[in-house]
This record gives sequence, C-alpha cells and structure tokens, in this order.
Amino acid sequence: MSDRRSREVQLRRRPAGAPQPEDFALAEVAVPSPGEGQVLVRNVHLSVDPFMRGLMRDDEDYLLPPFRVGEPLYGGAVGEVVESRVPGLSPGDCVTHMAGFREWSLCGAAEVQPVSPERPLSLYLGALGMTGLTAWAGVLDVAQIRPGETVFVSGAAGAVGSIAGQIARIGGCRVVGSAGSPEKAKWVTEVLRFDHCFDYRSADPGEALSECCPGGIDVYFDNVGGRHLEAAIDHIRPLGRIALCGMVSQYNDATPPPGPSNLFQLITRQVTVAGFTVNNFAHRMERFREDVSAWIEAGLLHSEETILPGIESAAEALIGVLVGRNRGKMLVRVGDDPAVRHDRR
Amino acid sequence: MSDRRSREVQLRRRPAGAPQPEDFALAEVAVPSPGEGQVLVRNVHLSVDPFMRGLMRDDEDYLLPPFRVGEPLYGGAVGEVVESRVPGLSPGDCVTHMAGFREWSLCGAAEVQPVSPERPLSLYLGALGMTGLTAWAGVLDVAQIRPGETVFVSGAAGAVGSIAGQIARIGGCRVVGSAGSPEKAKWVTEVLRFDHCFDYRSADPGEALSECCPGGIDVYFDNVGGRHLEAAIDHIRPLGRIALCGMVSQYNDATPPPGPSNLFQLITRQVTVAGFTVNNFAHRMERFREDVSAWIEAGLLHSEETILPGIESAAEALIGVLVGRNRGKMLVRVGDDPAVRHDRR
Repeated sequence: MSDRRSREVQLRRRPAGAPQPEDFALAEVAVPSPGEGQVLVRNVHLSVDPFMRGLMRDDEDYLLPPFRVGEPLYGGAVGEVVESRVPGLSPGDCVTHMAGFREWSLCGAAEVQPVSPERPLSLYLGALGMTGLTAWAGVLDVAQIRPGETVFVSGAAGAVGSIAGQIARIGGCRVVGSAGSPEKAKWVTEVLRFDHCFDYRSADPGEALSECCPGGIDVYFDNVGGRHLEAAIDHIRPLGRIALCGMVSQYNDATPPPGPSNLFQLITRQVTVAGFTVNNFAHRMERFREDVSAWIEAGLLHSEETILPGIESAAEALIGVLVGRNRGKMLVRVGDDPAVRHDRR
Repeated sequence: MSDRRSREVQLRRRPAGAPQPEDFALAEVAVPSPGEGQVLVRNVHLSVDPFMRGLMRDDEDYLLPPFRVGEPLYGGAVGEVVESRVPGLSPGDCVTHMAGFREWSLCGAAEVQPVSPERPLSLYLGALGMTGLTAWAGVLDVAQIRPGETVFVSGAAGAVGSIAGQIARIGGCRVVGSAGSPEKAKWVTEVLRFDHCFDYRSADPGEALSECCPGGIDVYFDNVGGRHLEAAIDHIRPLGRIALCGMVSQYNDATPPPGPSNLFQLITRQVTVAGFTVNNFAHRMERFREDVSAWIEAGLLHSEETILPGIESAAEALIGVLVGRNRGKMLVRVGDDPAVRHDRR
C-alpha cells in the first residue's frame, strides 16, 4: 500500500493580512501504511474554519499549536477507514479527526471519533460536528436563552451563526441576524426563518439594531467582534448575556483594533460577557447530537453547506471563509462520501 | 420645629471633565417637619462614591436618575431619627438612606433601613454598607473565587477594592493589588495584607503583572478599567473571571476612550467578564453582614475610612474620590455619631 500518494495543503509562508493563494502550496507525499495503533483514513470532507487564520500566525499562545511553514496544515476532517491496526475499527468505518487538509490521513486510535455512516458525512463537520456543538453550547449553555427573549446573532449566514440563530428560534426567542449581503440576509429570514436579518455592509449595525430591536436585545451571539460588538453592547438590556464565539472581522488584521468604548455599560446594565470555545463542551456531545438530529429530522433546523470540489480548492476555501464567501458550513470535498453514493457533484 | 435649617450640596452646573469646586454650591434651606409616613433624620455621615460622577451627567440611561442643576445632590447617608411619623421608628433610632448630601433629610418609611447603633455608624456606609456588599458579592458571587487562585484587584486602596482584596485573602487566594502611590501600595500590603501591590503611576500595569504574576491571574476585580483591564486580560488564565465593578479611570472623560484591543483573548482563554452593581444583591445583605462583621471582629478584615469634616467639605470629597485622595471609604461627617460619642474630631 505504500505506493499510495496523498496531496496535502502546506503553509508556504505566513500571510500578511488577508491570506493569498501563494501563501499555500499543494504537495504530494507518499502514504505510509498504518503502524500498530493507527488507522489510515481516506478523507471525504475537510472542515474550513475562520479560527484557522489564527493558526497561520506564529503564536504559541493560541487555541492550538500554530501551523509550521513548509509543513501541512491540519484541521477537522471526516472520512472512511481504509486500513486499520486499531482494535474495534475496521475498513469501511467512518471517523472524524483533526488531521485534515490532506487526502489521506494516518491517525492514532485516540485521534479519531467514529460516526454513523447513516447520514451524509459532511454533517459531522457541520451541524452535527464541532460547528453545531459550538452553536448549541453557545446558545444554551453559555448565553442560556429563555423563551421570549430577543437574540442577536452576527454572521448569521455563517457556519456557526446559521445554526445558533435557528436554535434560539427553536428555543422560543425572537431572533435577529446580520449577514454580509442583501441576498444572504434574505436567505437568513426565508430559509433559516430568523425574524429579521440586516446586511451589515449597507447598514451600520447600531442603526440597524435601533430599528429592528427598539426594545433592545437580551442576548448577543458574537461571531464578528468590532462594530457589531459595540452595537450589541449599546442595545443590550439589563442582565443581558453576550456569548463571544468569534471575531472574524479582525482575524486578518496584523494588530487587533481597539475594543468597544462602551464597556462601562456592561456594569450599569449588569451584563455578562462569556468567551468560549467548543473545547470545554466535549462532554455535551451526546445530548447535542440528540437535539440537533431530532431538529433536522423534524424540519426545524436547516443545515447549509458550501462545498468546494477537490483539495486544489482548499486555499480558495481558506481565503473565502474569512470574507464570507460561504453560506453555512464551508467544506472542501476531497473524496466520495460512502454514505451518499448518489450525491456526487 | 420648622425653624430648623439644613445645609445641602447643590449641583450648580454639570462638570466638564474633572469636577471643580465651582460646580457645586452649598445652600441653606428650611427643614419641614415630617408628614405622615415620614421621618426626619439628622445625618451623621455622607457616602462619597465614584459612581456619583455619572449622576452629574445629563444621562437618563445611567444607574440612577441624574442630579438636576440647581437642585441638591442625593447619595448614601447614615444618621439618627429625630422626629418620626412612621410606626416602628422612634427618635434615637439609626438609619441609612439615599437622601444624603444635606445635614437633615426627610425620608419616607420605605426609604430608610434601620441599622444597629452598636457599631460606629460610618461602618454602615463602608465595610458593612453598600461598599462592603459590592466587594463581598463581587468576589464571592460574581468572581466566585476558589482557594489557591490568584486574584488581582485594581483600586486596592479604594473603598471597594480594599475590602474586595481582603475578602479574597480570607478566601484563601493569593491577592495582588494596584494603587495610586507608593505609600498606598505599601499600606495595602502592610495593613490590608495583600501579597503584593504595585503603584500603577510608576509602573505599567501589564509589566507589573508580568513581574508579580508570572503564572497569570485567575480573577480580576476591576475598579479602574482602561489599561488595567487590558493588562488583566493579557494575564488572565484559561477559565478566568473578570468582575467589572467600576472604571474610575474614565469617569471624568467627556467621551469614553476605546476599549482593550485584546478582547479576542476572552474567547481563546474562555474567560467570563461580568458587569455588576450592588443593586442585584440586596437579598444577600444579611449573609454579607454576618460574614463581614465576624471578619472585622476576628481582626481579619481592616476597615479604613477617610473622613472629611463638615458639609462644606463635600465638594472637596466628591472631587477627591475621583482622583484617589481617599484611602478606604470616603466620607463626609456632618454630625456627631450617637454610637461613638468619644470619637469626635
């Protein structure tokens, strides 16, 4: 099996500002056979996430170790076990792992999580994966929404935002979103059934919130940071909660911009701002998957994916997810999904 | 009794920047006799608090209604009932109320809280009053300190900070403070027994924290905002908590300065920032007074007061508390304490 070749995405240099295609390289490497305690995975989908921009910096203090120049990126992926030297894992089993951004991944037993092939595998990176868990835990555990509250979600057409807002709607909240184009905003209200969504490129978030939430907001789910966060603090009601999930507006900035000047209102309005990552909610995975699976089956929650074909699209996907080229989850398809043989594009 | 005269502090004009003596006026008014359901209180101490700077602005959206130009200020006070038309309240009873900044106050029955005259009345504005409750609730209910944690308190020589840090120490934490002079910093470590205190006017808070907390901090109790908050976010450890109590560094600013540029670290480190005011902790008053009374009696908690004499000192006190002229609680003494006849200055 050692004549198998895998293409992988490497970091050619650290981006300055917005990543460029030349910051990445596609390389072909030999695929070793799995050693004892390893499995060889044929990847089907790669997860393309805004937080990966942070891994392109030389910052050992970030969530995860930085990518190394001249070496492959890593990231979430889902695929099919082809060879296994792990007891309990057999060829044909499907798994998620973090050794993505290549066509084939060699993984240790502890690095893979089995998933059921009864659903399209892409779901395990999106609505039923880390993305969905981030949204679910952020809305329910962090922001602790209550029925009747008004919830504002920025990046509402994005991977996490699109699910977070729908969960708030299912939870009985009035849900307002912001998105990066009039088309996206329309889609957010029509397909995701948010109560309202504005295009933040044509309307100032503060003015838009004044208009659509004259009584203020109870919860802000922040994927964007910057002006969105400042506007949300201006409009948040006493005892409001802000779940800080991402700040995509500044991921490409060499130095982060100053923060909101209205933080004092957090005191007078007794607001809690909770930064969180999905890492602390692994213990909630089972309950989360029960909830979201049921909502998808009941037609309550729409799962959207933007899928680019082939690993040669990876750089385009990485660049695009930072400027909102995706609607819903951004994925790169690098192989056929064994669960959905009919779904080839 | 209607020939009784009371001096009161009026707002002559709204301050621009730091308040000036000319922003206030002392006026003498007749003291009416109490009507049905009212008591007449001879005030002993007035509470001088940084948050009152916000009441000098024309801002209906602040914690409490703004002071009105040409009318008396209001604020916390403690005194002795002289005449009563309230069942259950008799002359000689001692009460706290919010109708201060005058020598005599006419209060409705619901506006006064009886206190025991067994202790110096000033304590009911400081360590056993709203100040102490703010510190106690902020450290225990909001920041939820745990033994062994490192707690950073800014404004450590101030009214709330001096008590907050001591409560964290009593709770088994390593406590680091910042104060506005070398003398204060020395006093904070020697008398309040913080583990460390730096003078933020001679040392950058970020550099000082790097030096005295190389392993980072678990909790930040913020009385100051600005550079202190940014430095605390830079040094906070994963799952840290920030209790936002005040931002005295910007109270005199006409427009608030930009906020910290490092808010993204709240996400990667999963930090919770909770703005709070004492208003939401009234239900904790009894338990708070039990705790703090016991700590004072056991010699574990030192209560410090800076007392200016006479209502003619009120403007000086209001100006001074915003630039740290006080050590511990800032008070204006406007009458003799019936509880401490020997303690006249």
